[in-house]
Amino acid sequence: MTANIATLDSSLADRLPEYSKTLFAAKATKKLTFEQIANELGRSEVAVAALFYGQAQASDEDIEKLSKFLGISKESLETSMGGFPDRGRAGPMPPVEPLIYRLYEVVQNYGYAFKGVINEKFGDGIMSAIAFSSKVDKEVDQDGVTLPFTRF
Amino acid sequence: MTANIATLDSSLADRLPEYSKTLFAAKATKKLTFEQIANELGRSEVAVAALFYGQAQASDEDIEKLSKFLGISKESLETSMGGFPDRGRAGPMPPVEPLIYRLYEVVQNYGYAFKGVINEKFGDGIMSAIAFSSKVDKEVDQDGVTLPFTRF
Amino acid sequence: MTANIATLDSSLADRLPEYSKTLFAAKATKKLTFEQIANELGRSEVAVAALFYGQAQASDEDIEKLSKFLGISKESLETSMGGFPDRGRAGPMPPVEPLIYRLYEVVQNYGYAFKGVINEKFGDGIMSAIAFSSKVDKEVDQDGVTLPFTRF
Amino acid sequence: MTANIATLDSSLADRLPEYSKTLFAAKATKKLTFEQIANELGRSEVAVAALFYGQAQASDEDIEKLSKFLGISKESLETSMGGFPDRGRAGPMPPVEPLIYRLYEVVQNYGYAFKGVINEKFGDGIMSAIAFSSKVDKEVDQDGVTLPFTRF
Amino acid sequence: MTANIATLDSSLADRLPEYSKTLFAAKATKKLTFEQIANELGRSEVAVAALFYGQAQASDEDIEKLSKFLGISKESLETSMGGFPDRGRAGPMPPVEPLIYRLYEVVQNYGYAFKGVINEKFGDGIMSAIAFSSKVDKEVDQDGVTLPFTRF
Amino acid sequence: MTANIATLDSSLADRLPEYSKTLFAAKATKKLTFEQIANELGRSEVAVAALFYGQAQASDEDIEKLSKFLGISKESLETSMGGFPDRGRAGPMPPVEPLIYRLYEVVQNYGYAFKGVINEKFGDGIMSAIAFSSKVDKEVDQDGVTLPFTRF
Amino acid sequence: MTANIATLDSSLADRLPEYSKTLFAAKATKKLTFEQIANELGRSEVAVAALFYGQAQASDEDIEKLSKFLGISKESLETSMGGFPDRGRAGPMPPVEPLIYRLYEVVQNYGYAFKGVINEKFGDGIMSAIAFSSKVDKEVDQDGVTLPFTRF
Amino acid sequence: MTANIATLDSSLADRLPEYSKTLFAAKATKKLTFEQIANELGRSEVAVAALFYGQAQASDEDIEKLSKFLGISKESLETSMGGFPDRGRAGPMPPVEPLIYRLYEVVQNYGYAFKGVINEKFGDGIMSAIAFSSKVDKEVDQDGVTLPFTRF
Amino acid sequence: MTANIATLDSSLADRLPEYSKTLFAAKATKKLTFEQIANELGRSEVAVAALFYGQAQASDEDIEKLSKFLGISKESLETSMGGFPDRGRAGPMPPVEPLIYRLYEVVQNYGYAFKGVINEKFGDGIMSAIAFSSKVDKEVDQDGVTLPFTRF
Amino acid sequence: MTANIATLDSSLADRLPEYSKTLFAAKATKKLTFEQIANELGRSEVAVAALFYGQAQASDEDIEKLSKFLGISKESLETSMGGFPDRGRAGPMPPVEPLIYRLYEVVQNYGYAFKGVINEKFGDGIMSAIAFSSKVDKEVDQDGVTLPFTRF
Repeated sequence: MTANIATLDSSLADRLPEYSKTLFAAKATKKLTFEQIANELGRSEVAVAALFYGQAQASDEDIEKLSKFLGISKESLETSMGGFPDRGRAGPMPPVEPLIYRLYEVVQNYGYAFKGVINEKFGDGIMSAIAFSSKVDKEVDQDGVTLPFTRF
Repeated sequence: MTANIATLDSSLADRLPEYSKTLFAAKATKKLTFEQIANELGRSEVAVAALFYGQAQASDEDIEKLSKFLGISKESLETSMGGFPDRGRAGPMPPVEPLIYRLYEVVQNYGYAFKGVINEKFGDGIMSAIAFSSKVDKEVDQDGVTLPFTRF
Repeated sequence: MTANIATLDSSLADRLPEYSKTLFAAKATKKLTFEQIANELGRSEVAVAALFYGQAQASDEDIEKLSKFLGISKESLETSMGGFPDRGRAGPMPPVEPLIYRLYEVVQNYGYAFKGVINEKFGDGIMSAIAFSSKVDKEVDQDGVTLPFTRF
Repeated sequence: MTANIATLDSSLADRLPEYSKTLFAAKATKKLTFEQIANELGRSEVAVAALFYGQAQASDEDIEKLSKFLGISKESLETSMGGFPDRGRAGPMPPVEPLIYRLYEVVQNYGYAFKGVINEKFGDGIMSAIAFSSKVDKEVDQDGVTLPFTRF
Repeated sequence: MTANIATLDSSLADRLPEYSKTLFAAKATKKLTFEQIANELGRSEVAVAALFYGQAQASDEDIEKLSKFLGISKESLETSMGGFPDRGRAGPMPPVEPLIYRLYEVVQNYGYAFKGVINEKFGDGIMSAIAFSSKVDKEVDQDGVTLPFTRF
Repeated sequence: MTANIATLDSSLADRLPEYSKTLFAAKATKKLTFEQIANELGRSEVAVAALFYGQAQASDEDIEKLSKFLGISKESLETSMGGFPDRGRAGPMPPVEPLIYRLYEVVQNYGYAFKGVINEKFGDGIMSAIAFSSKVDKEVDQDGVTLPFTRF
Repeated sequence: MTANIATLDSSLADRLPEYSKTLFAAKATKKLTFEQIANELGRSEVAVAALFYGQAQASDEDIEKLSKFLGISKESLETSMGGFPDRGRAGPMPPVEPLIYRLYEVVQNYGYAFKGVINEKFGDGIMSAIAFSSKVDKEVDQDGVTLPFTRF
Repeated sequence: MTANIATLDSSLADRLPEYSKTLFAAKATKKLTFEQIANELGRSEVAVAALFYGQAQASDEDIEKLSKFLGISKESLETSMGGFPDRGRAGPMPPVEPLIYRLYEVVQNYGYAFKGVINEKFGDGIMSAIAFSSKVDKEVDQDGVTLPFTRF
Repeated sequence: MTANIATLDSSLADRLPEYSKTLFAAKATKKLTFEQIANELGRSEVAVAALFYGQAQASDEDIEKLSKFLGISKESLETSMGGFPDRGRAGPMPPVEPLIYRLYEVVQNYGYAFKGVINEKFGDGIMSAIAFSSKVDKEVDQDGVTLPFTRF
Repeated sequence: MTANIATLDSSLADRLPEYSKTLFAAKATKKLTFEQIANELGRSEVAVAALFYGQAQASDEDIEKLSKFLGISKESLETSMGGFPDRGRAGPMPPVEPLIYRLYEVVQNYGYAFKGVINEKFGDGIMSAIAFSSKVDKEVDQDGVTLPFTRF
């Protein structure tokens, strides 16, 4: 069945860097999931998806592996992915995509509850939304989004 | 030191149901953390904080235990907390509180990355942002927000 | 259990006409559901709830029956409910309440699909959002919101 | 008369995936209504219209039938429709199209009335705006939008 | 029947000058329509309603007649209505009241059509939205809103 | 003098259906006013302008007459204008064009005044903003916008 | 006639510092125009009106003269007006008051025209919107708003 | 030095009518200031700049002179500039360009001060933001923006 | 002269925690500048001002010193300032206060320039906007806002 | 490693003047940092980055040096960079890029604190956000953004 591969919606592509199209096209042609690419790169699935959507910086090693695994010239990837990511513009806020809106709704409904618990546990600190690690796992009651905490 | 107890900011109180003030005042007087109240109620800290912020429905058992532990008349809690929560109005969106904004930023930056991974793993489904369970834990690489998934 | 009666959230009351508080207070004291009041008034539950939220006009008969059933002086109801409803201000748009947001999401996702089907079936017409009848029913695959159609 | 076939407004096309143009062009050329296509696919008219507007996921069977009925190569449909839908971007919110605005107005005026009735009938639950079934029918007092309810 | 008299919604009153409450209260007590007051003042109904909503300036003669007809002390009206109107704040824009939204929808849908016709008929001019006269009449195909035109 | 013919501003064209460009180009080439075309079609000027701006549905007769009078192939007009109009997107709201803003200002300033007078005259009804007839006339104190009223 | 004195609209007062009410009340009681007060203070009318609306800082001399001329205790004026003005919150933006909207419309329509002319005349500079002097004069073709220019 | 000529920013051009590009290109090639063109046309600099930005209507005489002075074919100018201007879309509001923002800030800070002074001087009138004349002059304390006043 | 002491604008107070009023009132009565209080507390002026505006957390030592220096009971300060700050709600965004708007304008104009330089100097990192130290100094070319940098 | 050179994100380029692409392309080809170019031009890094992003005006000397150092024809730079910058449109506000958002958050959280300290130190003045000098330096506790102050 074709529906197992996440592709890039054509009406979304203009908001992303041009290499997103290249990466997603190769992913679709080779029928690769983010999980397969993540295994190849040795990074988490979410981190790899973030690379594809232009929201994270590729290391030299990432670029080399992506080039080999997806069959894209390393030089073109170096040129296009070599800069610093211009984050935060993939989709509109508030999100209109229902799945993404549910994450937004968590922040809207439970934001102050998280703040209260975090403040009491860790003091007047803050989580890093940028440098966080994350897993998506099928077992309920397992890891979701993990936000490492920095005291100040 | 006084700073270990999360209190209710006076300029926030008008956005919340009136029983929020009662609950937070008793919590401050008794110098209780959400963790202590959560242990008493047998619920997670985030769930208890959500009750205090008017974002979750109290069960009859919750009301009974809150009444005893915080020293508030059960009748007054039943009257004020007995309705259905009117969720989502605790704070402005986009959040201005930096800690809460970091959660929002996760959605903004990684929303599509999560969608891509979740779609590939579970198909065209959606998470429930309302009925989710959540832990906040000091050990990095542990549970954060867990969103149970519903296929459709 | 107390949770079966919908009450008026205190932080919502300021957006509604003053008689909303009177009606909801009597409803809470007498522990009446919208269904019980609807049976008494001979109107649908949604219509009755809309009266309580100040979104529909009460007829003289509605006022008389509400006065008797809720034990509120008829004169005070005539004075306060006798004008024309100033609709549309009960809650913010886009809705932040998750249940109401789901209705909004239907419009966001399927608005053009409805328009396409309605146009093909009925021509270049429009539904009346004001004068519609509606049922909420437990059986799945039954009536939800019914919008009568006006050709033009 | 030409006006019986819903077509894709050229100024709307950019907000939709590219296969929307392909599907609508074939529909216009063959002068097919959503009802005719729905009968062919064995799905509801609204579901079919949602497929055309990129708001629902096509099954393998949908793609096969659409390919045959509309005379579009199955391979091209598989490639373009094989991903997961990126919902919610068909039109602006609040809607400017008067017919769609009427649906929005229902949410604005009656949102809290629906919430009150639903809460009392079903408890603290929520409807699924994504996985709902819907009929549009000519007889007044008949099914409109049906939102299945999920308890939590 | 009580419903024939337009009254001031309590949740709207804060947006209006304080004399609006005084005027509407007297109107409600005496059960006067805008038409009756307009006949007394020798002004159009819409102009009188605009005075009540604080959107137009009362002349000395208006104040004298309002004082007599509504039984309000002339001095208090002179003090409160003697300033210059601070227009445009009666309701939110876009309007949420369905009746007022329909007027807004005319501007949204037909604004450029009006501009095109007016420009061709009168040149590069503009209507005065402030100093216009207006009638509301029961006969269809009769006067509605009349906007006098100023050439420049 | 060239300025008597309303043309289509190039920066506006993208918001309108493609046939708007075709119609306006033919109108400009033939130096026709909306009045001349309206006389040919037997419709009001505003209705004709609304057709040109994609805000109204052309009948088969309209298409036939437009084709002949403007010298555009009937087939191409049938294909492009044969669908249902996707209304409300011609210009931004609030309007930035001063002439159109004046109409918007009427709604902002006098919306509640109109509502009060209409409610008292006609009860709890609503005007149809879509199916209204309208005249623009040089004589002051004459018809402007006429909104037919529907009781409910 | 009463209408020659600008007073403070009661629904505007909450946006202004509390001393605005005191100043406007004294101005209304003594029936003084801004021109008369300006003559007394030796400042321009617009500067005096800006003081009344809390948009400019009063000098010690201003406070002394206002105290004497308006009959307000100097101590209370010193306490309330002695801080630094918190500018820019008198009214909503975009303005809804038609007279103020016209000024806004100048910026909207002619902003780039002014920038082009100013850049060519004075180079890459900027005007000071805060420290400007201004006259309002009855003779057409006379001074309006004067914005002193600072080169950089 | 090249910097004395105002040119058209490429990222702004899409908001303006196409003839803006033609006019600015000719102005840049011939290295003409708005002052020089204004002298040639016998209009004020601001009026000429407004023509270039598509915010004012060119007379037949303007078109003839622009054609000669800038070396653009008169026919092409007549076709493109012959319609009625679609004003108000040159830049975003609130302005992001600092120079234009300063003008906006004047309205924000001093809007009510101007209204108070104007009302007291001229009664309940309004300025015309469209048909105003304006000078930009190097001497401080001289004419800035002059808004002619219309009583009503 | 009274103007050297920053006071709390009455129309701003509602956005801040209640202890802001207490602190500012004592500061005004004792005619203390932020500099004097900063010297007493051994913190920077900006940090002290942030405490007064409820944007930073007071340590036990801060509370003790504030209590002594300002003559406010330590217990009342402990109760009111003992929680965690609810940051970010002091003023509207975009700022309307001209001085604060200038800081906002720096971000608007130079945000990407800063990002480019910071990325090249420090890699793909981020500054901490919360835990930053800052000086305001009279000598031009001296420290302004200092944002410590965290690599990730 | 490629990541040390800031490049122009393709999805950002449309908001900037066309010469931004030319400059960034040359910078990428020659693998130059802003620091290297700044040393060549004798200007600060931030000033040079602002030139690249179209937010500052290039002097004749800047153009000459850029032309030589980057290998771009001087004529083409003179033509494209010779106008006056149209500032403020590089990115959306509020910023979505996390690094830039942190600067915005400083204004949101500490804006009034800065205003209080600046007012007390310098009186009722304002900083120039346009003509400011700035350094980015690796040593913590060093210069960040310096805003020169202008009294008025």
